[in-house]
Amino acid sequence: MFHVIIPATEPELHYMSLLSISFYFFINNAMIILQKYMSKPILSSRTNSLVASPIRKFLPLVRQAEKRGIKVLKINIGDPDILPPPKFFQTLKKIKSGQVPYAPSSGLVEHVSAWQKYYAAYGLNFKPENLLPTIGAGEAILWSLLLVANPNDEIIVFEPLYTNYRGFAKMAQVKLVPITLQLADNFALPKKTEILKKISPKTKAIIIINPDNPTGKVWSDKELKMIVEIARQKNLFIIADETYREIVFTGRAKSILQQAAARPRTILIDSLSKRFSLPGARLGIIASYNLEMMSAALKLAMIRLSAPTIEQIACTPLIKDFRAYTKKIKTTYQKRSQIVNQALKKIPNVVSNTPAGAFYQVAKLPVKDTEDFIRFMLTKFSHKKQTILISPLKDFYITPGLGKNEVRIAYVLSADKLRTAMHIFKLGLEAYLKK
Amino acid sequence: MFHVIIPATEPELHYMSLLSISFYFFINNAMIILQKYMSKPILSSRTNSLVASPIRKFLPLVRQAEKRGIKVLKINIGDPDILPPPKFFQTLKKIKSGQVPYAPSSGLVEHVSAWQKYYAAYGLNFKPENLLPTIGAGEAILWSLLLVANPNDEIIVFEPLYTNYRGFAKMAQVKLVPITLQLADNFALPKKTEILKKISPKTKAIIIINPDNPTGKVWSDKELKMIVEIARQKNLFIIADETYREIVFTGRAKSILQQAAARPRTILIDSLSKRFSLPGARLGIIASYNLEMMSAALKLAMIRLSAPTIEQIACTPLIKDFRAYTKKIKTTYQKRSQIVNQALKKIPNVVSNTPAGAFYQVAKLPVKDTEDFIRFMLTKFSHKKQTILISPLKDFYITPGLGKNEVRIAYVLSADKLRTAMHIFKLGLEAYLKK
Repeated sequence: MFHVIIPATEPELHYMSLLSISFYFFINNAMIILQKYMSKPILSSRTNSLVASPIRKFLPLVRQAEKRGIKVLKINIGDPDILPPPKFFQTLKKIKSGQVPYAPSSGLVEHVSAWQKYYAAYGLNFKPENLLPTIGAGEAILWSLLLVANPNDEIIVFEPLYTNYRGFAKMAQVKLVPITLQLADNFALPKKTEILKKISPKTKAIIIINPDNPTGKVWSDKELKMIVEIARQKNLFIIADETYREIVFTGRAKSILQQAAARPRTILIDSLSKRFSLPGARLGIIASYNLEMMSAALKLAMIRLSAPTIEQIACTPLIKDFRAYTKKIKTTYQKRSQIVNQALKKIPNVVSNTPAGAFYQVAKLPVKDTEDFIRFMLTKFSHKKQTILISPLKDFYITPGLGKNEVRIAYVLSADKLRTAMHIFKLGLEAYLKK
Repeated sequence: MFHVIIPATEPELHYMSLLSISFYFFINNAMIILQKYMSKPILSSRTNSLVASPIRKFLPLVRQAEKRGIKVLKINIGDPDILPPPKFFQTLKKIKSGQVPYAPSSGLVEHVSAWQKYYAAYGLNFKPENLLPTIGAGEAILWSLLLVANPNDEIIVFEPLYTNYRGFAKMAQVKLVPITLQLADNFALPKKTEILKKISPKTKAIIIINPDNPTGKVWSDKELKMIVEIARQKNLFIIADETYREIVFTGRAKSILQQAAARPRTILIDSLSKRFSLPGARLGIIASYNLEMMSAALKLAMIRLSAPTIEQIACTPLIKDFRAYTKKIKTTYQKRSQIVNQALKKIPNVVSNTPAGAFYQVAKLPVKDTEDFIRFMLTKFSHKKQTILISPLKDFYITPGLGKNEVRIAYVLSADKLRTAMHIFKLGLEAYLKK
């Protein structure tokens, strides 16, 4: 309701006002009708708040550089240049023409049985019902979050953290509570009391990635024991992402499940992508001694029916006979790690640690904003018609403001190319600082 | 706090009580410690409340029947016996040994371009950014729910409903609000006013499956127009699952997007599983003229990195040249539909409709509980060492109590086998009713 008082002495004004009031109502109604019939509905806030992958957002600049004839050495994502075991293509080519049915939701029997054999090599005796092939580790991550937490529940993570956990947490509406690890400490765990401080009645689980992406940290037995002890004390699940298990440069590959105390509460995430250099095959697995968990996971598997049938067939012989291949790539990545590490140590004011596994390394640069440096490398710098692409680390942190001067380097190129890339890195950084 | 009053005249009782109090505290503490260290944490209620797939829960009984030497004719799930186009295996075998990298999150360029050509045949001119390959229609369904709704938001669906929508809705914590369609009405839409009654301020979208699973209903232009009109009036999204588009027995295959008014608010779900008889390939797509939606969908795609690379390559030529194949399978399914439909009409007291598309048919049986009938068929009945497996329809309804006497039959066997299956159906039902 609103009132317009018009002095009777001003009939013209009266007339004009009535007109403008009518006009106001006309426009108002038209707007409501327009809104109803022309506007689009609004997307959910949960997906609208997602950020584009920090690893992938520079692709348009990469394409522009390539159009200018610049070769971009991509050491930003975990997409290795190493060939998968030849047996993969041999088996693929042997698959007879015929139906390509859904695989059972619980996985092809032969494929699951190959994983049983794989885990037995680590002293982990699983029955088929302890194992469930997934569509990449990604699906296993999403399911783990859904399995342990309701919306608004909390999960403890260590940052910097493989950034896609943040996206999956948004999908599952779970809050990740970060504990920050320090490059200067070689990403060692803080004291138990510091971790306990972050645990609330809403905390349902602790996530560990071992060997770690992006830090290359390999967790010590002491650290793993502390995590298991905390999980038992606070009755939490442990989500253990061991995608890079075999890529460790000293000591033996292992699993947190080798600690019996971890078994009732741990959900293990594994993948074929890194272990057999098959990221495009989209196969992973979740494993747990907790059968209640596996039974709920099977229901999730039934909803999406099946993991890719052909890849399950083609990867089965690889899993059964993994050691020769993983031994070889471990040596390859170790050599690459040394190249990157030595090169980084020679660049003034760059701080880094010595990774112990996986194929990533974090470095702190003498710049304010590594995204700006990465843009500079793609748009303004080249050396002998080449430049590099690395990942900014900011979005690997949950705590705002952290990691702005850090980057992740992925050892996904051959030794020679890596040497060139690190040389370009050094020259590019010098040029950037002189700007 | 509790007090125990012991009369001083009874020193023995005093002693005993102190002992029992100590014992009480000892047990109590032990229980707390046990609970802390031995118990497992509790799974999330959202996954714990999932039901096992009604389509897949009879598998143990099937295995037992098969062990007894009974052949089970499976007409329960949408896993057709038809071979995929030969070009699939030809292309698969031509893929050279080499890296199997992640595909771009937005799909392989060639693969997306094939889909562009496919949709152009329906007059839908999409740019690559309107299209996003997914890991089966399943992933497209989950993303659609996440894109349009926050937890506790509502989405209108028509029941009976392809049951996996219920699982995906639980994962996304979205409430499906059902409008019941009647077999007696050939699953026609109710009046507009009836649909409007179900729409609340929390409603974000309407889901339609066309041609429909499980009913075989093909939506009329009038019905589609009504849905678009309601969506515009109430500013809702439309999630249109057109997985079975080409499998229509009269008239031409079409898409809701051929109605221009639907375009700003529709997210289209498609799949290669049924169209090319490739359920194990795990490839689908989402398409929308709403670029805001597609941009958010791409962020979801980046979280899971990539759809299967090899299948994207092997399916590309199929999509480009789809008509010859889809024409052939349409005729096949039409013939099968007639066989099932005629057979059902000859069984006394069985009520069914005449499906117009897809490869499913709903039937109402003269029994109290079709799950009990299905168990009977698997455990107690056989004819010439054969029996059948069909799907109970109860879990395709959201409204409790509906569908208990209904089943879904999938035409996924050859004409001869279907005839046998329907004969066994008739004999089995007679035997069950005489029990």
